[in-house]
Amino acid sequence: MDAQKSTASSEFDLYLAQCRDLVIEEIKDIVPADERYGPVLYDLMLEYPLRRAKGFRPALCMATCRALGGHLEQTLRTAAVLEMYHNAFLIHDDVEDGSLKRRGGPTLHQTYGVPIAVNVGDAMLALSLQPLLDNMALLGLGKALRILQMVAEMARQSAEGQALELFWIRQGRWGLEDDDYRHLVHKKTGWYTFVAPILIGAIIAGVEDERQETLRQLCWDLGIAFQITDDVLNLVANENAYGKEINGDLWEGKHTLILMHAMRQATDAQRAQHGATLRKARHEKTPQEVADLRALIDDKGSIGYAQEIAAAHAKAAAEHLRATADWMPPSIHRAFIQELVQRVTSRLA
Amino acid sequence: MDAQKSTASSEFDLYLAQCRDLVIEEIKDIVPADERYGPVLYDLMLEYPLRRAKGFRPALCMATCRALGGHLEQTLRTAAVLEMYHNAFLIHDDVEDGSLKRRGGPTLHQTYGVPIAVNVGDAMLALSLQPLLDNMALLGLGKALRILQMVAEMARQSAEGQALELFWIRQGRWGLEDDDYRHLVHKKTGWYTFVAPILIGAIIAGVEDERQETLRQLCWDLGIAFQITDDVLNLVANENAYGKEINGDLWEGKHTLILMHAMRQATDAQRAQHGATLRKARHEKTPQEVADLRALIDDKGSIGYAQEIAAAHAKAAAEHLRATADWMPPSIHRAFIQELVQRVTSRLA
Repeated sequence: MDAQKSTASSEFDLYLAQCRDLVIEEIKDIVPADERYGPVLYDLMLEYPLRRAKGFRPALCMATCRALGGHLEQTLRTAAVLEMYHNAFLIHDDVEDGSLKRRGGPTLHQTYGVPIAVNVGDAMLALSLQPLLDNMALLGLGKALRILQMVAEMARQSAEGQALELFWIRQGRWGLEDDDYRHLVHKKTGWYTFVAPILIGAIIAGVEDERQETLRQLCWDLGIAFQITDDVLNLVANENAYGKEINGDLWEGKHTLILMHAMRQATDAQRAQHGATLRKARHEKTPQEVADLRALIDDKGSIGYAQEIAAAHAKAAAEHLRATADWMPPSIHRAFIQELVQRVTSRLA
Repeated sequence: MDAQKSTASSEFDLYLAQCRDLVIEEIKDIVPADERYGPVLYDLMLEYPLRRAKGFRPALCMATCRALGGHLEQTLRTAAVLEMYHNAFLIHDDVEDGSLKRRGGPTLHQTYGVPIAVNVGDAMLALSLQPLLDNMALLGLGKALRILQMVAEMARQSAEGQALELFWIRQGRWGLEDDDYRHLVHKKTGWYTFVAPILIGAIIAGVEDERQETLRQLCWDLGIAFQITDDVLNLVANENAYGKEINGDLWEGKHTLILMHAMRQATDAQRAQHGATLRKARHEKTPQEVADLRALIDDKGSIGYAQEIAAAHAKAAAEHLRATADWMPPSIHRAFIQELVQRVTSRLA
């Protein structure tokens, strides 16, 4: 069993690494090597993509397309654009959240300042449009248009998700239910991590609309399981392996399912105390206040609570994937997607 | 003569006001009235557009299209998108430049903070894509595609221009020639203020490529004359009428033709002194240091120097416009463009 698992695991890593190499080459081809803007524009577009990252968004797009009978060369450019959008969002999100670390290094605005970071993100979004227009020749008008619409929708959903969280932070709002969290992360993370990559892969392969509905359900559960697991890792992972700052979510006052649960379970006195901490900006919080938040989470058993919910969503995702068996036959591409679904909650192991 | 001038003037203002009303309605139609994100997303998209502004970018798009035989309803949606792009750039530029005032009010990030401002800009860009895709049905595939490409190019040119200036600021670079300035403002301002609105208007009207070249030359000169005049206004205007902070460019250390001239003409000792001021961030500069910069500009006659160059470019722009007479017959739309060209340098009056 163990030997089999380790084979599957290394095949998975190999698949991911091969996709990543292809996507990096594609991104280097899209980003011009133009020295006239010094080191503050095009060089910086490659900074996050070249850092240690799994790149499973473009890999999911490629794998879905190929598992459904499409060809690699049909997806490469679009998969690279999805990775560029993702990285542009990361740059702006890091500015908005005041994050310090990203993929094992300092965030872009920490090193180059907010003005350069905001502009690099904008320029990456600007560069991403032309390759999607080039899809007209590669994929035909119909598919190219649907991909453009999906990307427009993805950008909108992500910005709405970001706005929702900024709104909650501004209101100091913690009387929220798990369904509020699900709604938030589906928009903020699920859309650009799963919905757009997987559905665009399916569109390129020419999958009918009814089947896309099953894929959408898969993405819903996968996105929630993924984000809860990421929230848990933020509290318990080894910082070097994780690549982000441990407890960073507490410093930034993020609305994780874990913290929302702890705040709901808190006594009125605790809620008042921690609510005051969470209303403070990152630099106003003290290490003791953050340690107290962490202690509240342990006291209320919120990590275990969140892990159970993540496991339930991962199980539902696996069931949705099984429901595609009729029209997505076994292949290394399907096996990759299947392994990714299994791994979503086991990243903790 | 005076009476005639005042008639022309009021016709111009009326034309502009009518275009603006149409564009505001169109923007309100594109931006959803969605309360779920509180007051931190869609409400804020209307904040800059609804402030006192002339809105001559969309007006130029509409006027060019109609002057060349196109119809108003063909341009409305696209003109509104150009105004949304412009306002999204303003929000991000204000963050990047640390600007305090915009159109007579505080900048968005001053009131709502950088995170919300950056996200509102991103969301406006996300919302702007779908209406351009809708052009496929309205204008046909060929024109819709060329407009999308023009918008992609505009976004890229603007980001490159912004990067160029951020690079110069980072380097503390002031040994620059007037041609460097021309190159900068054509990218940073000229493209989204003139090239994209005018050429997109021409594309919608179905103008051939050779004629577009004359329009591009018009835009080159118009953009430079426009930006120099804006730089002069930043130093000499009445703050209430101008809507931005007087001397704001000096506080922000912007590379204006005026300041570049003054720094070139400065003695080595002056250049060292003022170079040190300009390397400082806005909040590190003292009022006295900024007053000293202003005195250097007066001492070197840099405002008069810049006005002469602006006048030469305005004259060249008027000549390019005259060269279109064969294929852009007299109309109220052409008259509007003509008056705008005349006014570019006379905004000081």
